[in-house]
Amino acid sequence: MPIKQRLAAVKQHLTDEQVYAKAIDPVESMNEERAKASFSIRELTYLLDGGEKNTLLKERFMQEFERDPLFKMDDIHDITKDELRERTMEKFRSLVHHLSNEPIDVFKKRMEIVSLIDPGFWTRFGVHYGLFVGALQSNATSGQLGYWFQKGALSLSGMVGCFAMTELGHGSNVPGLETTATFDEASDQFIIHTPTLTATKWWIGGAAHSATHAAVFAQLIVKGKNYGTKCFVVPLRDPKTYNLLPGVNIGDIGKKMGRDGIDNGWIQFTHVRIPRSYMLMKHTKVSRTGTVKEPKLQQLTYGALLQGRVAMVVDSGNVSKKALTIAIRYAAVRRQFSNSDSKIETKLLDYPIHQRRLMPLLAQTFAMLFTGSEMTDMYNKMMNRLENAKPGDTDLEKVLEMLKETHATSAGLKAFCTWNCLSTIEACRQACGGHGYSAYTGLAGMYQDFAVQCTWEGDNTILTLQLGRYLIASFREAIKGKKLSPGVGYLNNLDALVGKRCSAANVDALLDPKVILEGWQVVCANVVRNAALEFEECIKQGLSVDDAYEQCSQSRLYAAKLHSYGYLFNRFLDGVSKVEGNLKAVLLDVCLLYGLYTIEENAGAFLQYEYFSPKQMESIRSFTNDLCKAVRDQAIPLVDAFNLSDYIVNSPLGRADGNVYVHYFDQVKRSNPQGPHPYFNRLIKPLIDREVNEADEDDEDAGLEDEDEDAE
Amino acid sequence: MPIKQRLAAVKQHLTDEQVYAKAIDPVESMNEERAKASFSIRELTYLLDGGEKNTLLKERFMQEFERDPLFKMDDIHDITKDELRERTMEKFRSLVHHLSNEPIDVFKKRMEIVSLIDPGFWTRFGVHYGLFVGALQSNATSGQLGYWFQKGALSLSGMVGCFAMTELGHGSNVPGLETTATFDEASDQFIIHTPTLTATKWWIGGAAHSATHAAVFAQLIVKGKNYGTKCFVVPLRDPKTYNLLPGVNIGDIGKKMGRDGIDNGWIQFTHVRIPRSYMLMKHTKVSRTGTVKEPKLQQLTYGALLQGRVAMVVDSGNVSKKALTIAIRYAAVRRQFSNSDSKIETKLLDYPIHQRRLMPLLAQTFAMLFTGSEMTDMYNKMMNRLENAKPGDTDLEKVLEMLKETHATSAGLKAFCTWNCLSTIEACRQACGGHGYSAYTGLAGMYQDFAVQCTWEGDNTILTLQLGRYLIASFREAIKGKKLSPGVGYLNNLDALVGKRCSAANVDALLDPKVILEGWQVVCANVVRNAALEFEECIKQGLSVDDAYEQCSQSRLYAAKLHSYGYLFNRFLDGVSKVEGNLKAVLLDVCLLYGLYTIEENAGAFLQYEYFSPKQMESIRSFTNDLCKAVRDQAIPLVDAFNLSDYIVNSPLGRADGNVYVHYFDQVKRSNPQGPHPYFNRLIKPLIDREVNEADEDDEDAGLEDEDEDAE
Repeated sequence: MPIKQRLAAVKQHLTDEQVYAKAIDPVESMNEERAKASFSIRELTYLLDGGEKNTLLKERFMQEFERDPLFKMDDIHDITKDELRERTMEKFRSLVHHLSNEPIDVFKKRMEIVSLIDPGFWTRFGVHYGLFVGALQSNATSGQLGYWFQKGALSLSGMVGCFAMTELGHGSNVPGLETTATFDEASDQFIIHTPTLTATKWWIGGAAHSATHAAVFAQLIVKGKNYGTKCFVVPLRDPKTYNLLPGVNIGDIGKKMGRDGIDNGWIQFTHVRIPRSYMLMKHTKVSRTGTVKEPKLQQLTYGALLQGRVAMVVDSGNVSKKALTIAIRYAAVRRQFSNSDSKIETKLLDYPIHQRRLMPLLAQTFAMLFTGSEMTDMYNKMMNRLENAKPGDTDLEKVLEMLKETHATSAGLKAFCTWNCLSTIEACRQACGGHGYSAYTGLAGMYQDFAVQCTWEGDNTILTLQLGRYLIASFREAIKGKKLSPGVGYLNNLDALVGKRCSAANVDALLDPKVILEGWQVVCANVVRNAALEFEECIKQGLSVDDAYEQCSQSRLYAAKLHSYGYLFNRFLDGVSKVEGNLKAVLLDVCLLYGLYTIEENAGAFLQYEYFSPKQMESIRSFTNDLCKAVRDQAIPLVDAFNLSDYIVNSPLGRADGNVYVHYFDQVKRSNPQGPHPYFNRLIKPLIDREVNEADEDDEDAGLEDEDEDAE
Repeated sequence: MPIKQRLAAVKQHLTDEQVYAKAIDPVESMNEERAKASFSIRELTYLLDGGEKNTLLKERFMQEFERDPLFKMDDIHDITKDELRERTMEKFRSLVHHLSNEPIDVFKKRMEIVSLIDPGFWTRFGVHYGLFVGALQSNATSGQLGYWFQKGALSLSGMVGCFAMTELGHGSNVPGLETTATFDEASDQFIIHTPTLTATKWWIGGAAHSATHAAVFAQLIVKGKNYGTKCFVVPLRDPKTYNLLPGVNIGDIGKKMGRDGIDNGWIQFTHVRIPRSYMLMKHTKVSRTGTVKEPKLQQLTYGALLQGRVAMVVDSGNVSKKALTIAIRYAAVRRQFSNSDSKIETKLLDYPIHQRRLMPLLAQTFAMLFTGSEMTDMYNKMMNRLENAKPGDTDLEKVLEMLKETHATSAGLKAFCTWNCLSTIEACRQACGGHGYSAYTGLAGMYQDFAVQCTWEGDNTILTLQLGRYLIASFREAIKGKKLSPGVGYLNNLDALVGKRCSAANVDALLDPKVILEGWQVVCANVVRNAALEFEECIKQGLSVDDAYEQCSQSRLYAAKLHSYGYLFNRFLDGVSKVEGNLKAVLLDVCLLYGLYTIEENAGAFLQYEYFSPKQMESIRSFTNDLCKAVRDQAIPLVDAFNLSDYIVNSPLGRADGNVYVHYFDQVKRSNPQGPHPYFNRLIKPLIDREVNEADEDDEDAGLEDEDEDAE
């Protein structure tokens, strides 16, 4: 026992046994960690939440939901898919009340909390308000919008919506959808039809049981001409009985990897007729006589699609918070193996390798949080401009530029951050050892729920390639002399960056954020340039632009990934630069850890372009170890600053008090009450009672011959 | 339409529509791929299975299980945990029959198939026969073994076993288990006791409902002295009634991420008495008078623990086969987006980026398969020698050396291969786009079932570190002049390897397997050396050996990972070298892809030690693209050679005939039969019928004002 502890023990008149018990007590271990805080936890919470007011609001919501019986969550792992779906519907009731009684900004904050409590419900609710109502808002004329709102779309009375875009055979390729909407001039109606099996609407959240209306995306066909994919409101069920309407055939998609609280369904339309006015005509219009008027600026219709992607960047940060709260708190109290001197086992968090497993992910989470709020600002600014833009405006080009940038950035970051978050959850799960495999510790379900984010609202690989395409296009504009927007501004500085080596005079300069920033710029400039040159080469060989992009897709993906790393570091550093004092000191460590860790992860690129020498790279590895250790000391205070209540974390391993074993055992017992044996008589008895050679049950020695040398 | 196709169409008198339908027909697409085979698929199957005889055996098993109603699997995604557990028990009946009627080698092959069909059942069965019976075989004297076998342990009559090693507070640290087995001389009994909450036996497969006996690991305490962790057979339940025996308290662990067919439980013992003879005394013996005789060679007891790890290397290859069968077959028929010239959409498999996502994983699977069979041979040889070894044998040192090598290699490969397999499953799942999130397409469940393999039988990080420790120890022996075993033989060649650069005269030489092999040896020699030097430095600074290993754990982990990459490439290349003709040509491409892809993935290391120049690394990236394309052409034939029947693959997306949409739609409909609305009256009606402002239902125009300029 170290002298200090021994002295403390004497002082308190404790026996050795008592000192030992105290030393391994998880609650004591947690208190010990909490006492290490070198900064004001509350101040960091305010920073992350965007101010005290938001923190107080979040705390109010957390308490409200915790006390709302409809939001009971601790039995969620043991209820069936059907029960989960009923819970979803029950929660609608609670949320609709809030929606009608609080400002939309406040309600949005509420929804952020909901996404952490129950992502399945969050999605189902989002299908109505985000996707269905969102489709109305983006595609309906103001008159149409008024009509559907009056009909109950906003108040959720008399109608519940769903969003029928994807089909069995088409997900990413929206222009390739097969469902048709053919104008019938005689009746002034559209005929909605599913011509093939692969045209079946698929994955439609809410279709299986809960929606009355769908926003259906279909090929607009007027007088034999196809005008491309447009959006139509199609009634599915009679709101009075929920019987399917004629020509509508709907089924349940059934069991999924996660989010089973959503009733995803498939829909087949067989010559279903809707009034012409049910086509949403904000952009393209079809007149009574079948004249089609197409919008001058097709691009302006895309803005709303980006909202989901931006939300997913924010969600990635938030879900990572929750996963790390569990894994880091558990690591602070879990002890395994003792070193030679002590019978007290070592905390997982004290193992260098465990620090390596979790601290970089903690740093990455901060990077995602800062990026998420930056991205939200960018989106809001862009939408403000976009909503007021009209063809002919003088700054229209600027607005379209903003749209392009926001589109590409949000695409790339959605992919980058959801991938990061999914790996973070899995790493946290594995870091909890065997207990990570229990449903009750929460990380397994978190993985299963989150996994879909890598696919929906744009497959991550395709989105990353879109960012890559934007980078190549920006590069080509830059060399023509165009001044690019800040996110890709480094491409205006190519001559200085390509071929540049790190000028750090000594090894400590590697810890200068400016060096890291420059390093990322140099590497990104190089990889974007390489991708662009490969693209030009394909064009020279006579490929079409699309085929050329396809051909260089590997370089494009690589460039986009590295760009995203650099982008996140930049946002993180920006965020830190606005902070002062002790808080700045700890955040700077976390930020440097993110920077150096990501360089290490991409050592191949930094060495390839010789920004760092092999020797410098060795130092970076060693600094990364040091930073892991430094951040480890503040790990519990940092996680505490995430300010997620025990109810939200919903994992016995992540409990704030550290009393993990007691909470875990209680949860397992509560969730699995003892009953009579479920299958002894039917299944086990006939098996083990069947006729085979019977053993001699009376052999008390069980065949052991004491002192028999041969048995050795 | 390309000329060739057009001509073919004319020849067949097909209309354009018919040609189009044929071109996009998934069955046609699959046939097209299958026709590309450049080698004998059957020959490759024999190679992978280890000969025609094994293939025929596997085919017999696949057919038997497919027809066995107890092994019905297509409804597995929709049944509850409780139903799954009953299914597990029912399957016991079928398997016990085979076990008693076929040679053990044949039965082992059968079990390999079972692991692909139902990993949950496979585990539960393995808990009895692998772990419980295995514990008897490793730890019982021959007399004791006879006793338990006669009692029914082997025939599964009158008893069902489980394996009670881990505790709530102790997983990896087996010597730190808290359960005690105290010898009571007066009664000639051991008292088995759970002293604390954290000492509760936890995760015990079969404990919740199905086991009568447990192999319990507990601290042997005789006359107040602790002799460390030993194994005891403890009866849990009365086999006639399945009532718990006095002092035994058992509960259900409940819901897990996967493998819910296993009834994992927790066990608390309160002063439970067992006869002294129930302690398994092959190694340590306790006499009637409490004399403890400890074994001379503790190490000899470890051999059996390795079997599970070796099996998991093999299983990683097999499960990867299944995942890739699904993703690659789907990619061969799924079409999305068309290029500018054609209205026929492009197969996913034709996209360079999709080739990048799947082809390297296909190559890695082959590497794991070759490694798995090599590892199995190594283990069998070692066990043969070990079982015949006695203290005092002249070649005992050699045997112990083999044991050490097998131990470290199997530890490292278990970790490396299970991680690889888990990422492969997830990558395959994501490569199926949205449909990968459906339970019915199989990959989600595969992930959930497989995830535990990264933790059980040794946490992957800890096992990787064990390999790292072995590498450092081998390095230290090598520099003392000792000749190492082949797997680490390159460390005998340090002077030549450290600092060596690639001598390839031209760029094509990068495709020479010898260059790749040397590259891996150079990189591994460097990283092992670095880790060892870091270790020596810690020792110099006065750290204990254990603390020094801890301190350099990051370098140790890194060295072990890179060593494993090199090891797999080496095994793959060995395997290929034994093949001839067309088969050799295709396998060599796959092997080169594995080599170059892994170099690319670890570019940082290859550039760090300057084996390759940045320019060569660029060429390697470009060759990797080429190889992806080359392997893509043979992808379906390669996957066909895995020879997994549709029943085994159990995924509509992985069906051999390619008719994915029809099978998928059928499965979803079959699994989700329509019924009356489950919750309309109770939940939806009150929600949407509540009193709010009613919309004007008669407005036929739905608020649309035609020709209203302001609405634009």
